[in-house]
Amino acid sequence: MRVLVLGGDGFCGWPTSLYLSDRGYDVTILDNLSRRKIDVNLEVGSLTPITAIGDRLRTWREVSGPLIDFVNLDLATEYDRLIAILRELRPDAIVHFAEQRAAPYSMRSPATKRYTVDNNVRATHNLLAALVHTGIDAAIAHLGTMGVYGYGWSGTAPIPEGYLTVKVPTPGGELEREILHPANPGSVYHMTKTLDQLMFAFYAKNDGLRITDLHQGIVWGTQTDQTALDERLINRFDYDGDYGTVLNRFLMQAAIGHPLTVHGTGGQTRAFIHIADTVRCVEIAISHPPRAGDRPMVLNQVTETHRVMDLAKLVGDTTGVEIAHLPNPRVEAEENELAVRNDHFLALGLRPTRLSEGLLTEVTEVAARYAHRADPRKIISRSVWRAGMPCASDLIPFPLQSSPGVTTPRTLRGAEPRA
Amino acid sequence: MRVLVLGGDGFCGWPTSLYLSDRGYDVTILDNLSRRKIDVNLEVGSLTPITAIGDRLRTWREVSGPLIDFVNLDLATEYDRLIAILRELRPDAIVHFAEQRAAPYSMRSPATKRYTVDNNVRATHNLLAALVHTGIDAAIAHLGTMGVYGYGWSGTAPIPEGYLTVKVPTPGGELEREILHPANPGSVYHMTKTLDQLMFAFYAKNDGLRITDLHQGIVWGTQTDQTALDERLINRFDYDGDYGTVLNRFLMQAAIGHPLTVHGTGGQTRAFIHIADTVRCVEIAISHPPRAGDRPMVLNQVTETHRVMDLAKLVGDTTGVEIAHLPNPRVEAEENELAVRNDHFLALGLRPTRLSEGLLTEVTEVAARYAHRADPRKIISRSVWRAGMPCASDLIPFPLQSSPGVTTPRTLRGAEPRA
Repeated sequence: MRVLVLGGDGFCGWPTSLYLSDRGYDVTILDNLSRRKIDVNLEVGSLTPITAIGDRLRTWREVSGPLIDFVNLDLATEYDRLIAILRELRPDAIVHFAEQRAAPYSMRSPATKRYTVDNNVRATHNLLAALVHTGIDAAIAHLGTMGVYGYGWSGTAPIPEGYLTVKVPTPGGELEREILHPANPGSVYHMTKTLDQLMFAFYAKNDGLRITDLHQGIVWGTQTDQTALDERLINRFDYDGDYGTVLNRFLMQAAIGHPLTVHGTGGQTRAFIHIADTVRCVEIAISHPPRAGDRPMVLNQVTETHRVMDLAKLVGDTTGVEIAHLPNPRVEAEENELAVRNDHFLALGLRPTRLSEGLLTEVTEVAARYAHRADPRKIISRSVWRAGMPCASDLIPFPLQSSPGVTTPRTLRGAEPRA
Repeated sequence: MRVLVLGGDGFCGWPTSLYLSDRGYDVTILDNLSRRKIDVNLEVGSLTPITAIGDRLRTWREVSGPLIDFVNLDLATEYDRLIAILRELRPDAIVHFAEQRAAPYSMRSPATKRYTVDNNVRATHNLLAALVHTGIDAAIAHLGTMGVYGYGWSGTAPIPEGYLTVKVPTPGGELEREILHPANPGSVYHMTKTLDQLMFAFYAKNDGLRITDLHQGIVWGTQTDQTALDERLINRFDYDGDYGTVLNRFLMQAAIGHPLTVHGTGGQTRAFIHIADTVRCVEIAISHPPRAGDRPMVLNQVTETHRVMDLAKLVGDTTGVEIAHLPNPRVEAEENELAVRNDHFLALGLRPTRLSEGLLTEVTEVAARYAHRADPRKIISRSVWRAGMPCASDLIPFPLQSSPGVTTPRTLRGAEPRA
């Protein structure tokens, strides 16, 4: 079974590519390396020392055997090359990660708002148009987000998997209708995933494309069995204010002795999934695609929910690192409840990796090992949702004069995990 | 009051610009003349002899007095110039027509699908991002479409104005929620307007932008009081298979003796509005904007609904021209009912221009006057919704050898309206 992984060099795309290759799929990565280039512009880098894509693929071949092919292609702008590649490879499945994926980055500036919309919408639409154009009946698995639903909208009802049954009052009595869950995105990034949903619905209806939309929670963890095989296969670890995800940031902050950055009260409840489950879910999705003519299948790719403050306390209690309450750069409710249905993946065989102290330690150890690569000036989130919203100053000074590899600032403590 | 009209050279944009100028608004048109350029590519032209935008504006100055300014700008790609213009003009209101507006054209080819999405989404998003960027608090009136709702979704209930009250079952009892009407677009073009809605909702919520979305029906008619003042001000009249709207096509076909092209059974019920009401609605909308913090205001810009077959019969009976049932190039229900609420515009003072024989005659006279400019090879709709769907051949041959201005084909009859 031949699979294209669009965005296969990114945080979720890379471990997914390795996992699918390990499981016997014939994998080709399409990626324009935009994630690495954004790092260049943000003057930040993965905490872990990721190698160049060519080195990654050579290492995989050396360590594991199978060849993963790579095409450097901008999905949003290089439509004709996409057509040529589809015709050459005729994939059975396409995993679509090729979107700008950070909410803070999408709110950072007019340029990043526009990039997020222009890139994400065109990437998705080019893919859909190209499949119709070539007549290739590949199953699409797209990485969506729990953020399309918003928070606190449906009271005590858990968030369903994509579709909501509602009653519509009419003069002829109430009609029962199953609708796409109303969109309540919290950032330009999340908004683009709600736009994707409408494009998927149209192309499934009009052209019979077979699409699964994976509404993923916040990913934590770094390594999978495959990325851990060799240091040259290591996955990204983002800790900066734009791309770092909340739990990984806490673990990294604990590792370098930086106060844990809680925005607002920390009363926000969020859905989570470990990166090792992400890659399994993707395989489940492409192995169980909808049929032509079906509406898009929506699967909530989450395994548990937690209040941000509870996670901060857990990490703080384990490591002894203090918690810093910082202004919230987002426009959002201070607190929310969250219950999510994830029946489909459980029924299809997912055995969730639960948040446990052992796993937290594993991530903290990764963070500690590469703590010398951290730039504490990049930790504070400075992308605000509206101009003029306050943001914090650096909590740890950065010793620009220190020699390479000895960037541990004076106030650092607890660089070794205490768990 | 200073108004920017984005897309002010088009079928709705031009008469709106003149109307607003006539009503005392200080009007600037932003347009990249894309509609004229698409005509070049389609090898077709307006039935009416529209003059160049410069001639249009000079004539308006000469005939009426006020100056309308013009900027040739591509809203989807020239963001920095848009910022400069917004800062210079600081408009009070912005009318946004600057989108590819034909459903058949949007389904014509992979290139036109992509153009429609890339242009429409980026144009709208650039505008929203630019208003946030500059802090200019202009009221936006955007031309949406009735097609966002789809047809036949809500049973006997008339289509509400944008928002639908539904009941959501929860463990704690039923919740009543007012949601954006579920999107049921019938083409890539209509899909882009459903994407616009989600972008409007986000920017209204996050940034307090004041947005009115005008869900317009199918426009008929050509002239308004202003465009009729001088032939050099004449409005476009599209009759081709991609851009011609159904009633205007029937009237033009009657004028040149072409069979009336009904696709499928003609059982489709559609919403209509006369171009003279379009321009009034736009002024009403920019005079009654929502407040900052309000959700987007949605107004159904329609005055009546008709079954396509009934319109064909009306025109056929009046003019003696036969009806041709052609294959339907669209993926849609053969028949549907349609009831639409338009309470807001009626409450705000719109006095609808009803479809009447007098008005039909007026349009037919315009068509008859310029019948010699018609190319009968451009009448049949050949853009199909799925590859391989059948479409009709030309019903009237085109005499390529005839001399200029004498293109009336042999089989033409009834070039004068018989009403």
